[in-house]
Amino acid sequence: MADDSGIVFIGNKPPMSYVLAIITSLSASDGKEITLKARGRAISTAVDVAEITRRRFIKDLKATKILIGTEEMPAREGENRSRMVSTMEIKLTKE
Amino acid sequence: MADDSGIVFIGNKPPMSYVLAIITSLSASDGKEITLKARGRAISTAVDVAEITRRRFIKDLKATKILIGTEEMPAREGENRSRMVSTMEIKLTKE
Repeated sequence: MADDSGIVFIGNKPPMSYVLAIITSLSASDGKEITLKARGRAISTAVDVAEITRRRFIKDLKATKILIGTEEMPAREGENRSRMVSTMEIKLTKE
Repeated sequence: MADDSGIVFIGNKPPMSYVLAIITSLSASDGKEITLKARGRAISTAVDVAEITRRRFIKDLKATKILIGTEEMPAREGENRSRMVSTMEIKLTKE
């Protein structure tokens, strides 16, 4: 879930699986920061993941940058218009 | 939905009803800024509302501050533990 680039894509899994990915990534690489990316309904999950990680596990972690935006998604089968979907990025940095 | 304090609480209504509340509030008061507040699943809706308002209606609106946090909610009936819920604030400012 977390690759070498320090990005974790948040989807439909339970929040704790992403929390574990973040903890693993930060401790394995001695990394100081990690970025969560989410789209649509997963945006709420991304905030949960950031808050659980910060409050329960890595207390010196701060949300140092939060960006919101919009992405155009290709039309689903049977539809002929592309859809706009909201996006969010949360950068977490260890102090 | 938007009171004089320039805060809009995002809940379960369709995004467009909040978008309209923001547009009305910003034009009526000649206000330069408004803050969206959301909890839990409504966080995704808040991002949708901010993005729709900014992209479709008020192009010179910017998300100038985004905060995430956690609030303790009282236990539901039949439960005996309080629940933690994620929160988000998005401040939108007209340039």
